[in-house]
Amino acid sequence: MPHRVGIVGAGRIGRLHAANIGRRVDRLRAVGVADPDAASAAVLAAELDCRAHEDWRELVARDDVDAVLLCSPSGEHAAQIAACAEAGKHVFCEKPIADELAGADRAVEAAESAGTVLQIGYNRRFDRSFAAVREAVAGGRVGAPVLVRVTSRDPEPAPREVMERIPGLFVDTTSHDLDMVRFVTGQEIVEVTARAGSLVSDDARELGLVDTALTTAVTEAGTLAAIDNCWRSAYGYDQRLEVHGTEGTALAGNELLDTTRVADGAGFHAPPLPHFFLDRYAETYVDELEAFADALEGARVPVSGRDGRAALAAALAAQRSSLEGRVVRLDELVRG
Amino acid sequence: MPHRVGIVGAGRIGRLHAANIGRRVDRLRAVGVADPDAASAAVLAAELDCRAHEDWRELVARDDVDAVLLCSPSGEHAAQIAACAEAGKHVFCEKPIADELAGADRAVEAAESAGTVLQIGYNRRFDRSFAAVREAVAGGRVGAPVLVRVTSRDPEPAPREVMERIPGLFVDTTSHDLDMVRFVTGQEIVEVTARAGSLVSDDARELGLVDTALTTAVTEAGTLAAIDNCWRSAYGYDQRLEVHGTEGTALAGNELLDTTRVADGAGFHAPPLPHFFLDRYAETYVDELEAFADALEGARVPVSGRDGRAALAAALAAQRSSLEGRVVRLDELVRG
Amino acid sequence: MPHRVGIVGAGRIGRLHAANIGRRVDRLRAVGVADPDAASAAVLAAELDCRAHEDWRELVARDDVDAVLLCSPSGEHAAQIAACAEAGKHVFCEKPIADELAGADRAVEAAESAGTVLQIGYNRRFDRSFAAVREAVAGGRVGAPVLVRVTSRDPEPAPREVMERIPGLFVDTTSHDLDMVRFVTGQEIVEVTARAGSLVSDDARELGLVDTALTTAVTEAGTLAAIDNCWRSAYGYDQRLEVHGTEGTALAGNELLDTTRVADGAGFHAPPLPHFFLDRYAETYVDELEAFADALEGARVPVSGRDGRAALAAALAAQRSSLEGRVVRLDELVRG
Amino acid sequence: MPHRVGIVGAGRIGRLHAANIGRRVDRLRAVGVADPDAASAAVLAAELDCRAHEDWRELVARDDVDAVLLCSPSGEHAAQIAACAEAGKHVFCEKPIADELAGADRAVEAAESAGTVLQIGYNRRFDRSFAAVREAVAGGRVGAPVLVRVTSRDPEPAPREVMERIPGLFVDTTSHDLDMVRFVTGQEIVEVTARAGSLVSDDARELGLVDTALTTAVTEAGTLAAIDNCWRSAYGYDQRLEVHGTEGTALAGNELLDTTRVADGAGFHAPPLPHFFLDRYAETYVDELEAFADALEGARVPVSGRDGRAALAAALAAQRSSLEGRVVRLDELVRG
Repeated sequence: MPHRVGIVGAGRIGRLHAANIGRRVDRLRAVGVADPDAASAAVLAAELDCRAHEDWRELVARDDVDAVLLCSPSGEHAAQIAACAEAGKHVFCEKPIADELAGADRAVEAAESAGTVLQIGYNRRFDRSFAAVREAVAGGRVGAPVLVRVTSRDPEPAPREVMERIPGLFVDTTSHDLDMVRFVTGQEIVEVTARAGSLVSDDARELGLVDTALTTAVTEAGTLAAIDNCWRSAYGYDQRLEVHGTEGTALAGNELLDTTRVADGAGFHAPPLPHFFLDRYAETYVDELEAFADALEGARVPVSGRDGRAALAAALAAQRSSLEGRVVRLDELVRG
Repeated sequence: MPHRVGIVGAGRIGRLHAANIGRRVDRLRAVGVADPDAASAAVLAAELDCRAHEDWRELVARDDVDAVLLCSPSGEHAAQIAACAEAGKHVFCEKPIADELAGADRAVEAAESAGTVLQIGYNRRFDRSFAAVREAVAGGRVGAPVLVRVTSRDPEPAPREVMERIPGLFVDTTSHDLDMVRFVTGQEIVEVTARAGSLVSDDARELGLVDTALTTAVTEAGTLAAIDNCWRSAYGYDQRLEVHGTEGTALAGNELLDTTRVADGAGFHAPPLPHFFLDRYAETYVDELEAFADALEGARVPVSGRDGRAALAAALAAQRSSLEGRVVRLDELVRG
Repeated sequence: MPHRVGIVGAGRIGRLHAANIGRRVDRLRAVGVADPDAASAAVLAAELDCRAHEDWRELVARDDVDAVLLCSPSGEHAAQIAACAEAGKHVFCEKPIADELAGADRAVEAAESAGTVLQIGYNRRFDRSFAAVREAVAGGRVGAPVLVRVTSRDPEPAPREVMERIPGLFVDTTSHDLDMVRFVTGQEIVEVTARAGSLVSDDARELGLVDTALTTAVTEAGTLAAIDNCWRSAYGYDQRLEVHGTEGTALAGNELLDTTRVADGAGFHAPPLPHFFLDRYAETYVDELEAFADALEGARVPVSGRDGRAALAAALAAQRSSLEGRVVRLDELVRG
Repeated sequence: MPHRVGIVGAGRIGRLHAANIGRRVDRLRAVGVADPDAASAAVLAAELDCRAHEDWRELVARDDVDAVLLCSPSGEHAAQIAACAEAGKHVFCEKPIADELAGADRAVEAAESAGTVLQIGYNRRFDRSFAAVREAVAGGRVGAPVLVRVTSRDPEPAPREVMERIPGLFVDTTSHDLDMVRFVTGQEIVEVTARAGSLVSDDARELGLVDTALTTAVTEAGTLAAIDNCWRSAYGYDQRLEVHGTEGTALAGNELLDTTRVADGAGFHAPPLPHFFLDRYAETYVDELEAFADALEGARVPVSGRDGRAALAAALAAQRSSLEGRVVRLDELVRG
């Protein structure tokens, strides 16, 4: 018997999860879709042959729903997680867990009190190469990690109307990479410094957003991590990782469009990188739902609410560092 | 309305195509499975929620079958293709089209007379990188092709019981590569020379089979192709291609298990290649069925019966060359 | 007629330059060697078939000396540059130009007043790949640079006795990389932040030195540069560079010991990187002397005293940032 | 005391060896140059500060000559080797050892009777990567070799006037690669098949020469080797090697002009390969002379007269195979 899942949010990522549930993840079955845009909800529900709701609370209230996939705007996550937990529903929540730390704390606490599963959608942890780097590090192949390098660049800025409502580069983009630093080192981040600018997007500059950033994180063990982000990458979606340790280094390169090279008088030419993040990370979206099914069956949650909270805290610290031009310790955030 | 497909042969490759039809290729629907092993037929039919047959002739006779997928032993292909054509059924046939040229000729003629689709399962043509090489060559990026190199090595020999019933390395393995030479050059092969030995498998040597071969093909335009095959490759399933021309060269490398490298005092270490050909070429099996659906809807057949016949002829010429220690022209085969 | 050169300092780098002058750089001829260690001076002078001096002032005073190569301890550079300039001698000075900014300023001013050539030994600018990256950037191939990444890791820490007398990681190691940032962007650095630790060397920790650092530099145009340094790299001397711009990215990889890979059941294995920086950068030491000869003949000095001053300033800013845990603007250094 | 060397032939390769002796190989000293073109001999002799001869016999007759470097046309090699041996002079002879087998046999016999050193200039054995492949194979890292692949392509055909006097692709180009097969496998070649054509050069076609060839060699142990040659390679001088064995494979890639890649909207771009073989293999010319000096001091000759004879025999067999359209065994050549 598959686990019965309600999907909150019928946008791009909601539809992607729905398709994966339909074709790839046999242990999950979609039984309802909620979206304030009734038409979107209806279309997706029809495809999945299940019920549509305008109000997510209706969906959460249903007895025949075991778990909820939150694909709603991030500002709503915290309250929805808490409501699900109170209703005894397990939750898979897209990142970030919340827009601010207090919400994240409430969400984590609610799920822990209720004893329900709470998994956050840091899908990159399921990438075959990043996971292999973590395994190499955890297996001692590079000794103690001392430097981490993450390159994470988007092919192009989001459209202006999207840019207007996202929480900004650090929470939107860098939080993935900060989570990756925690994932591959197995260490908590204690300090963050970020230098950033509006260098590649007129929209970003006009909206007062940064589009390019270098973020340095320091972990509890003193490991130093450098994350470079940019919202423009002419050659595709660039995603690389390196963990340098006392005994060696482990690198993950980019996935390729194909393995060809053509050589001529001008040299060797290989195709650009995949352009779209949903293509680049397609398999990870399947694998994180398989892991969610495992968690529903008692396995350890692979990306917990606390993981989601930690990534958010580091991202907010980076944002503050960039704004205030100074090194920011994460324990400042708690103190307020 | 999807095209209704009967599957002949419920073995490994039959089950693979069935799974792809079920999950990935919406335009095809399996309506029947035939296998002389009734139990296998029943199991697969149950999975597909369709009827099972012991005798493939029953399946071919059904009115509600539009097309047949032949996943039977290669010795039966020719007669089955002919029977399907006579019954007005389109055919997708696993490679090789037949075990000997006369059968291939009969099969091609039957389908052409009936005006039915006949597609042969040279799936590697659908590989993203090999297809990109062909496109580069066809687009003139390397000028006129003068040299082709194909490396095609299996991780390990087939089990002895499989080895006992397959037609041998040249028809089984090299025919794929000879088809690739035709595919990337767009030229017919006119001459073949093969040198081979039993170098890596005791079973092969005891059965009088070669397990390692170098095959040189010459095309009508004088392009020279070198194919190296081996049934043992400690580091995985090795599949590479290169077309060297008057203005440059186009290469396709191996697909990787992941993109990681770990460096330590001994150097840089990357994982071995994928081991299993069904994993390595997983996407091609989907894509060739999509192309078959296109052909059912009027598109050009991407790998025709004549293509299947040509690859078989070249493979049989290689076999004869290896046996007789001499250069063999393909027109000898026709002459007898 | 070759230019007559006096070499101050008969240590490792002095002997390297001497060998290159003897075998590779025909336009320079060594006519004298000075070293307070009379034995070292004598040995090298004998090899070069020229005169030995204990006191560098004697060498600088000679009429038959056109130019001086300063390979002395960095604390002596500033005074020696000034003395040479006053004596009308051209100078090639190993990096850094001085240990502190005031010295650097005096040295630059002396050479400019005298109108003599002053070239600093940032040899990496002459590396074929780094130079090609600069050329690609200068030629507009990546658009406007927005991110620079430099990886510069030593195979192992210097021996403790060397560590005791060098100016520390930022001036010794990072200054090369800060110069590289200026070189490839063509922009001045205005702000530096460094986070660092003693993570890989007991000697470093005991001596209060950092051995691992992440340095972020911001240029006048807002370009962000991340430099990662470590004094331990199990797999060899790791030197990589990347400039990411609005229209693309340019990367320089490591030089290899050889181009081989061996594949076996465990995967693909390539040799480690060259271990010794004098091997890795061997050709650059020849090329910078060729460029010095060019400068003696009227060409533009490729790495000027002002370049040396700028790299030193940025390195000292990084040192201060690491010490004080804050973002440091370079104009603070001038203000005191 | 360096060994005193006479150089026969003041052409391109003679001048290269002379320059290496002057700057890099301290154990050899040039004491004479012979060339029928008196002006060329005089110029090179002046550079080396030694005596010039028109007649090589004068040079060989000198008491103060320990060894002779034969850089003369290949048709003269056999007689010159024999004359040197009779005069008690050691010989380093450019490849091929002779133009026909009888001459090669006489040369080898003369040197063996005289007990003098005879080294043949198969310089590629000294390439760092090819040597590392041989070491990997000899050390058992790939198990027993079963397949060898050699790619050896020249950037462009020789000028027509050179083409008119060289012995053709098989002896000129392929003999290097056949020597490489013997070198990396440690096995003798017993059979050769070659298919070839005039595909890239009008001059070659008009002169009745082939410019593109695939040569298959079989060794005494049954190892199969495929060599592909072409006199046109738009992207530079392409030199690759692979040895596939029962336990793995060892590959040597191309040397690069630099390590850069530039990525833009069209993909990743790396520079072409080095164009000129003297640049590509520059270090091997130094190393083979160092090895010659070793041999003069009693070390084993690294590429013996018998090695030169074996490579020539295989090349002549390839030539015959191509001409006669059949498989050729090397023992046929001896029989007539």
